[in-house]
Amino acid sequence: MTATASPFAPARIEIVEVSPRDGLQNEKTPVSTADKLALIDRALAAGVRRIEATSFVNPRAVPQMADADAVAAGLPERDDVTYIGLVLNLRGAERALATGRIDQLGAVAVASDAFGIANQGMSSADSVASARAIIDAAKAAGKSAQATIAVAFGCPFSGEVSDDIVLEAVAGLIAASPCEIALADTIGVADPARVARLVAATRALAGAIPVRVHFHNTRGTGLANVWAAIGAGASVVDAAIGGLGGCPFAPGAAGNVATEDVVYMLERAGVRTGLDLDALIAANRWLAPVVDKALPAMVARAPHFPRDKA
Amino acid sequence: MTATASPFAPARIEIVEVSPRDGLQNEKTPVSTADKLALIDRALAAGVRRIEATSFVNPRAVPQMADADAVAAGLPERDDVTYIGLVLNLRGAERALATGRIDQLGAVAVASDAFGIANQGMSSADSVASARAIIDAAKAAGKSAQATIAVAFGCPFSGEVSDDIVLEAVAGLIAASPCEIALADTIGVADPARVARLVAATRALAGAIPVRVHFHNTRGTGLANVWAAIGAGASVVDAAIGGLGGCPFAPGAAGNVATEDVVYMLERAGVRTGLDLDALIAANRWLAPVVDKALPAMVARAPHFPRDKA
Repeated sequence: MTATASPFAPARIEIVEVSPRDGLQNEKTPVSTADKLALIDRALAAGVRRIEATSFVNPRAVPQMADADAVAAGLPERDDVTYIGLVLNLRGAERALATGRIDQLGAVAVASDAFGIANQGMSSADSVASARAIIDAAKAAGKSAQATIAVAFGCPFSGEVSDDIVLEAVAGLIAASPCEIALADTIGVADPARVARLVAATRALAGAIPVRVHFHNTRGTGLANVWAAIGAGASVVDAAIGGLGGCPFAPGAAGNVATEDVVYMLERAGVRTGLDLDALIAANRWLAPVVDKALPAMVARAPHFPRDKA
Repeated sequence: MTATASPFAPARIEIVEVSPRDGLQNEKTPVSTADKLALIDRALAAGVRRIEATSFVNPRAVPQMADADAVAAGLPERDDVTYIGLVLNLRGAERALATGRIDQLGAVAVASDAFGIANQGMSSADSVASARAIIDAAKAAGKSAQATIAVAFGCPFSGEVSDDIVLEAVAGLIAASPCEIALADTIGVADPARVARLVAATRALAGAIPVRVHFHNTRGTGLANVWAAIGAGASVVDAAIGGLGGCPFAPGAAGNVATEDVVYMLERAGVRTGLDLDALIAANRWLAPVVDKALPAMVARAPHFPRDKA
């Protein structure tokens, strides 16, 4: 690992570990609450300090998240860790807040009406209003809330998504003063030029509110998009150990960018993440049998460099 | 595909298809001369206009390239295509030139003494002298020659490689006026900050000589490095259909950056490549049974976007 900072990137970024929620939510193999908590423990041991612990959504729609309350109840009591609960509506927000163990709500707006109807039964504009209500509810309960704009780079139903609709959602969310705003490439179609452009435009609207990015590596572009995003001023990156995520019914479809691959790239590039690569690789090796499949992440399959002289 | 040029990248880059040589050279499954020529045909049909057709090296060291003369003899006669033959010494250069079918020699210098001894039996400095002799021989025969610096971002034997030794090799090669100079991440350990820095430094030395880059995706960073390289002024990118390449004895090790993934990323980012994505995906599907393995490239496994509404 090189230790010098790069003129092409910030000295430090924060990684939000999303494997317990976005990583697992589509897994066909049922994962026990105990294993979810073990995954969270391993992430914390690797240095993760903000983690998407679970989502409070309809268990019929997302069976893998049916144990959200049990996961919340089992979270280690850590003053130095922020536990995020993802919610899609006020009912979910109330459930998350009622656990007393969720530090931050994650609200989701969508940049496509077609996706909004399919994902949460509402238009893009309604999803922004819903996310604002969630942010308000969190604040009223003394908690923080961030907002993510899903399908910001393309929609599986309606195709290309315009910058205009994304930035309209950004503006609508910013008005509610979330603690952070995120652009999500839900289906892995973003390219680094658009990422850089949209992150820069989002920053211009967001003022002091940090910008987070969320990429899937479905078409191999995940790390390029991470690099472009942080070059354009994103300061927080979602990632999942093992590159977990994606649809189990689409063979070969990859998931979130892999935490260990992102950490490898950034640390070598002189961007500090605070995470321990060896601990992440160990978590990857533990995780594969739990989800009963080969994980798409790359670094754990390659020789250590430069420590092992192959 | 978006059609607008990006402020973050050039309007156009050239892709050199390297699957017939760097892609195949480590494959355990023997590939027939006919299949190699069929691969070259498919690359040309997808729009490739410069292709690393084979290497003229010791067949005992690289059995997969033992049919270099037969491959050269079978190359389609195309005035609009440049066929590259990779050579490691003057003997190889003479063989390549004697075929009468190779348009451009590819010479290789190394940025690490340890790798040079293992790969071609010479130190870094000697490899630069050898590459210069190859460039001179090509010119004397009325052909062009380019030069690639192997292990420019890390060596499997000695670990980290300093910028100094790479730039010393660049300067030594530039003095022989190759038609192009390339930085190669032979083992897939580059990070985009160093890529940007080293490409910029190489350009400063190279003057009007174009800079090519060659990345392996062993640790998932291949496309990030491509993006960083072209942002820093590289104008040519090596890629292999299917992401072919890598060591067959290291399970999970990935090969070259995949041509179809690079084209997907760049065309969506408004950078023209001149290549046809659908034809590349078809070549990927043809290639997998030929090499008898799943290919690491991603785009061919994902739904078309935005054409197919999933």
